[in-house]
Amino acid sequence: MTAVSQKDSLRAYCLDLAQRARLASRQLGLLGREPKDAWLRASAVALRRELPKILEANGRDLAEASGNGLTEAAIDRLRLSASRVEDIAAGLESVAALPDPVGEVLESVVRPNGLRVRRVRVPLGVVFFIYESRPNVTADAAAICVKSGNAVILRGGKEAAHSSQALVDILTRVASEHGLPANAIQLVNTADRDAVGYLLALNDYIDLAIPRGGEALIRRVAAEARMPVIKHYTGNCHVYVDRSADLDMAERITVNSKCQRMGVCNAAESLLVHAAVAATFLPQVSKGLAPFRVELRGDPATCALLPEARPATDEDYATEFLGPVLSVKVVDSLDDAIAHINRYGSGHTEAIIANDATAAKWFTDRVDSSAVMVNASTRFNDGGHLGLGAEIGISTDKFHARGPCGLRELTSYKFVVEGEGQIRE
Amino acid sequence: MTAVSQKDSLRAYCLDLAQRARLASRQLGLLGREPKDAWLRASAVALRRELPKILEANGRDLAEASGNGLTEAAIDRLRLSASRVEDIAAGLESVAALPDPVGEVLESVVRPNGLRVRRVRVPLGVVFFIYESRPNVTADAAAICVKSGNAVILRGGKEAAHSSQALVDILTRVASEHGLPANAIQLVNTADRDAVGYLLALNDYIDLAIPRGGEALIRRVAAEARMPVIKHYTGNCHVYVDRSADLDMAERITVNSKCQRMGVCNAAESLLVHAAVAATFLPQVSKGLAPFRVELRGDPATCALLPEARPATDEDYATEFLGPVLSVKVVDSLDDAIAHINRYGSGHTEAIIANDATAAKWFTDRVDSSAVMVNASTRFNDGGHLGLGAEIGISTDKFHARGPCGLRELTSYKFVVEGEGQIRE
Repeated sequence: MTAVSQKDSLRAYCLDLAQRARLASRQLGLLGREPKDAWLRASAVALRRELPKILEANGRDLAEASGNGLTEAAIDRLRLSASRVEDIAAGLESVAALPDPVGEVLESVVRPNGLRVRRVRVPLGVVFFIYESRPNVTADAAAICVKSGNAVILRGGKEAAHSSQALVDILTRVASEHGLPANAIQLVNTADRDAVGYLLALNDYIDLAIPRGGEALIRRVAAEARMPVIKHYTGNCHVYVDRSADLDMAERITVNSKCQRMGVCNAAESLLVHAAVAATFLPQVSKGLAPFRVELRGDPATCALLPEARPATDEDYATEFLGPVLSVKVVDSLDDAIAHINRYGSGHTEAIIANDATAAKWFTDRVDSSAVMVNASTRFNDGGHLGLGAEIGISTDKFHARGPCGLRELTSYKFVVEGEGQIRE
Repeated sequence: MTAVSQKDSLRAYCLDLAQRARLASRQLGLLGREPKDAWLRASAVALRRELPKILEANGRDLAEASGNGLTEAAIDRLRLSASRVEDIAAGLESVAALPDPVGEVLESVVRPNGLRVRRVRVPLGVVFFIYESRPNVTADAAAICVKSGNAVILRGGKEAAHSSQALVDILTRVASEHGLPANAIQLVNTADRDAVGYLLALNDYIDLAIPRGGEALIRRVAAEARMPVIKHYTGNCHVYVDRSADLDMAERITVNSKCQRMGVCNAAESLLVHAAVAATFLPQVSKGLAPFRVELRGDPATCALLPEARPATDEDYATEFLGPVLSVKVVDSLDDAIAHINRYGSGHTEAIIANDATAAKWFTDRVDSSAVMVNASTRFNDGGHLGLGAEIGISTDKFHARGPCGLRELTSYKFVVEGEGQIRE
């Protein structure tokens, strides 16, 4: 085939995929809760039963992993085991246990002329989910999209192609056994990167794109998508230690926010300390961070207090390190902390440690981020921990959904209005 | 000045405007209900008191109107009078009477680890509102944006420049008297169309664009905006008369949907009639529409029953006429009507006339439009009539807000999480 006809055939494949998804979404949106939950529960059973098949497929991905140039950490994320497959199966069961958002009446009024107006929750339609290597995400995303009544097009990393295919094979087979439309879940079957661009142009058939992965992937999707995108570019999260803070609590929360898992979006990247407590707190927190070998990059006031700190550049305050580096700054006031955060932050997650409730309210009112924590770790900005039950991503945009996105965040609504012949005068 | 330096200075003006709006929005978002409502009520008083000044400014717009090539209808929309200014003032008072959405707790849970999680409603931030000639829209939009805590940048048509300026002068003067930030409401002070493009690129400072006007304006804004847009391109609205319909009601609703006001987005453009009632209903509705001189364009079955109908083209079924033309089709089933609507409709408003409740539910479940009416006129898809109190536009998108958009639709939320030192294990 010539290059041109190869591209034409790829384009046709993507269009077909999107149109099938649109048709499936119309049927899926009409299903009640029961077939969707039955599918989730039966899929969990099937995953457990077909563990050897899944591990065999995963083994093929692992065999190709070093050829694909994967790091040790990436290989670890790619690797499935009996216990990881059990986690995936349990995840499906927990989504089954969540309430079905579709059909929920958000509001209901009777107008003076007798019209009965209801705002009824409906699915968005078709979700295009683009993600990197971890195979468990394949099952999570399918569960959340389909439970919320949306058809999903999955585009996973090629590193996990065999594992994802094995999981999707099981999910789609069980779906058809439970009366779900055949194309409710589709996996893009080519590693050609152009397929992503073609699909992102199909806003007549795809209602939402969700990228999950590194910043480069997310920026590419946001730039090319003609449909809305749920995303965050970075999580440059701050912990601010107020002059009223309990310093032991502040140390515990700083260490947890930074170190409990360093490579994730809700990990802290920057520490702001009120000048009144800096001389006590900075040496204390430096000691707390030492076992995790966190490099501190500070302003002159920090460096004067901590010989182990290196000078921070302006760029450091804007950086999401995703690793063992923390930028540090001594601030003269609560307002200085807020101004710093609203300038350098990415609107993801910030925390204040304070015993002064007025200071805490001042901070939560003025910090413009998806989640603002008072005396708690930034690591709690997560669908599970905030009570959404499941999460497909975290949004730092303010339009539609902000913060962790679960089932309801993948829905819209329509107005249904019932009358007895009312007309406008 | 050279053309280049003129463009640079326009660009600098737009950037300054947007940055001022962003700063104002941060203050505005923190205000409670009272100063905003006091501003709205005092503005209503000031508009009434300064009626002569407003009419004088409007007179200047009217004097330039024929030079600007405005049609009679456009001049009528532009013209203010004592009673129209009274309507504007009363509109401000009615927005004052609506609840303040800002600060509303949308959800509140206590997690097993003791974290108290609240989802708190916050303003979107800065709204860029682009509209055509009617000066009353200037005051309406300012009221809705500011009451919902958003700073607004208004870009009206140049035909109404003097009238809009007079209204904004009053609104901003009263705003500063009531402690609102000076740049909460800003009017773009140039007719240069490039200003719109420059502002639409400033997504760091502007959170939302709302175009209100003809389809060309809306398409331009949607194509250029780097921020989200609340919009509908067209309202190709349908009335479907089921075999179970009360035909007198169906006639009344069809005539009202088509003729009560022809140039608006929620007016009907297409009539679908079940074959079982077509022979009775089509002559009846044709007679009902005759006084309004509505031209009927029908499929062969319609033309066979109505000698006065002309043949419809495929294009006619996709057209928003905004005037005295109605496309008509006889359908063999409810499902045929739904398929036709989901193919040709614009997702705005559709109505079913039916006594069969099962048919009505089948229709409202499957028609994918922002509002679906049962036995009521399409003209009710309007913020006032659906109980939102006020409306800044109607969205046919499913993301964020769908249907009429009032105060709450101009808001987002943030998660505020309070703990006593909780960390993730």
